[in-house]
Amino acid sequence: MERRSFFQTGLAASLLGVGGGTALPAWLSASPRRLPDGSVRLSSNENPLGISAAARQAIIDGLDLCNRYPGASAAPVIEVLAKKHGVEPANIQLGAGSTEILQMFVQLFGGRIIAADPTFEDVPEYAEPFSIPFDRVPLLPDYSHDIDRMRERAQRTRGTAVAYICNPNNPTATITPCGQIDEWIKSAPDNVYFLIDEAYYEFAENADGYWSALKWVKTNPKVVVVRTFSKIYGMAGLRLGYAIAHEDTIERIGAIASSNSVNHLASVAGLASLHDEEMIPRSFNTNERARRILEATLDELGIERLPSHTNFLMHRITGDLVDYQNRMRERGWLVGRAFPPMLSYNRVSMGLPEDMERFSETLREFRSRSWV
Amino acid sequence: MERRSFFQTGLAASLLGVGGGTALPAWLSASPRRLPDGSVRLSSNENPLGISAAARQAIIDGLDLCNRYPGASAAPVIEVLAKKHGVEPANIQLGAGSTEILQMFVQLFGGRIIAADPTFEDVPEYAEPFSIPFDRVPLLPDYSHDIDRMRERAQRTRGTAVAYICNPNNPTATITPCGQIDEWIKSAPDNVYFLIDEAYYEFAENADGYWSALKWVKTNPKVVVVRTFSKIYGMAGLRLGYAIAHEDTIERIGAIASSNSVNHLASVAGLASLHDEEMIPRSFNTNERARRILEATLDELGIERLPSHTNFLMHRITGDLVDYQNRMRERGWLVGRAFPPMLSYNRVSMGLPEDMERFSETLREFRSRSWV
Repeated sequence: MERRSFFQTGLAASLLGVGGGTALPAWLSASPRRLPDGSVRLSSNENPLGISAAARQAIIDGLDLCNRYPGASAAPVIEVLAKKHGVEPANIQLGAGSTEILQMFVQLFGGRIIAADPTFEDVPEYAEPFSIPFDRVPLLPDYSHDIDRMRERAQRTRGTAVAYICNPNNPTATITPCGQIDEWIKSAPDNVYFLIDEAYYEFAENADGYWSALKWVKTNPKVVVVRTFSKIYGMAGLRLGYAIAHEDTIERIGAIASSNSVNHLASVAGLASLHDEEMIPRSFNTNERARRILEATLDELGIERLPSHTNFLMHRITGDLVDYQNRMRERGWLVGRAFPPMLSYNRVSMGLPEDMERFSETLREFRSRSWV
Repeated sequence: MERRSFFQTGLAASLLGVGGGTALPAWLSASPRRLPDGSVRLSSNENPLGISAAARQAIIDGLDLCNRYPGASAAPVIEVLAKKHGVEPANIQLGAGSTEILQMFVQLFGGRIIAADPTFEDVPEYAEPFSIPFDRVPLLPDYSHDIDRMRERAQRTRGTAVAYICNPNNPTATITPCGQIDEWIKSAPDNVYFLIDEAYYEFAENADGYWSALKWVKTNPKVVVVRTFSKIYGMAGLRLGYAIAHEDTIERIGAIASSNSVNHLASVAGLASLHDEEMIPRSFNTNERARRILEATLDELGIERLPSHTNFLMHRITGDLVDYQNRMRERGWLVGRAFPPMLSYNRVSMGLPEDMERFSETLREFRSRSWV
């Protein structure tokens, strides 16, 4: 390894304070605003700040043990998560992203899944190859889950029913009142399981009527809460998510989990991120600033938008969604994909505030061409 | 991030050439010979050299995109692997280690698994929660797979039969003549699938009668070859393995794969490792030197050992295996675990040659105490 190639990296520049005269703070000058081709990805609900400086350092410190199986580095992550959530290590299962956690529970429960329409696409994709029935219940006009209708479907289910509730919901960014979910959990018969996907929890935790389903896990083995390091901690590329559930449920999921699916560097980066007390407020505040800029532009242009409690939002477009995405791509913005049945809406993830200022200019151009 | 904490890492020392006056080459001075507690792990068939310097640099260069989902970084790994193996990208499926690949195929095929006894333990563990029958066929006296008896079992199976052949076999380190496997594949009826685990391929490829099952995949959709970056490339902690199979089979496995289970840093490190032409010969030669030292000591002490074509070997012990492992642990060596039914044998992975010199001293002490 040559010093020269090392010092060419952004990391070395950041360490040595030679960030090229930008006004951005040091922790940001090294962060990944753009993809290698120069485009800005506003299509995958990623964190534009990148991983924390503490996580970067932990990865560098962790290089020496990349040749060892990663079980030992996962253990302290589980311990710290247990403390953070006021549970025991036996209440936590790690996965290679929260999507692996969702896949495992779809397989473990094995019963009919009752979910919103639209919602996070990975869950129906995991059900399909195992011929697990999947019921889609349209969101209500306020884009919250139709808990009453989902409950009716569960009541009509023979055998196991699994309520998948993504809250805030992806792709709509909207929240479902947690009082309604609590009522259902409280009164649910024995055949109903609850898979509560809180991937965007930290962006929504201050919202009225929103709280975690965590309070159920100590006493109710049928409630599983799913969280991720991909969003607020910016670790989508490293693959770290987890389930919090009753210890009996965690024991059951442990039996079907892949060996060592969480890699060593994800664990050390996750641990460092948990100890970095600035990470959550920094991500939250940056996202709030970015979203307010975008919301103001959409309102200024009279473009209908859904209320957002996450790091993305949906807004109305005119014309064809694929045309819209292609035109955005030509201007260096990756947005969308299609989220049927909401084909007259685009989902856009927040970049940095300055990205959303530039994106606003593109929206104004689109309006001048009647593309939005 | 402070320069001080960075320069305290072994990486900085290695980069700056301040390796403490050791005679070891630079790429080795930064490598992970010991666990944080000072012990040497000879229990998990890991590569004591650590990941390659090129992989370390690729990880550092890859830090900027850790916040992005890793699909884009996996694509070039698939391309290079396809070229390396003379197949198309459509013949490759990546996984979070080869164990995830094995898990996926156990689930995809869903039929009775016919395997050696003993063999790699993850496969029966993946079958069990899905109530997939698992037949164990004892190894022959020369520790090769009993292909004739496995074939008989398959012939008696109604519905799908899956022949799991780990070659070289873990935990015995022995090879099964590939001519016998080819004969079976050639004559197998339609209900028989072959899951050929070549995790240790690179250590065995020069052995008489040993070759890859790769030649089958273009024409036979029922043969799956499984490889890993955990062993010869030293990447056990990063989680990267893959299947090579007919494109129809890869399409089927793609449908049940977890989204994005391979992390961004594993992909960039894997790609760099594939381009590092010194990595395979360096790992192979270091392992050969280490194994010859251990074999000479075992022979000198008259301790029965199995022939090894991998980075580990099994040798006979006297007395209880747990006592043996505990006594080794007290001396800083992690060895074993139990591999029933071979409970009077210990499995030991190779460390560096100098580790095996020191380990030989421990074996001599054990002999003087009649523990071996």
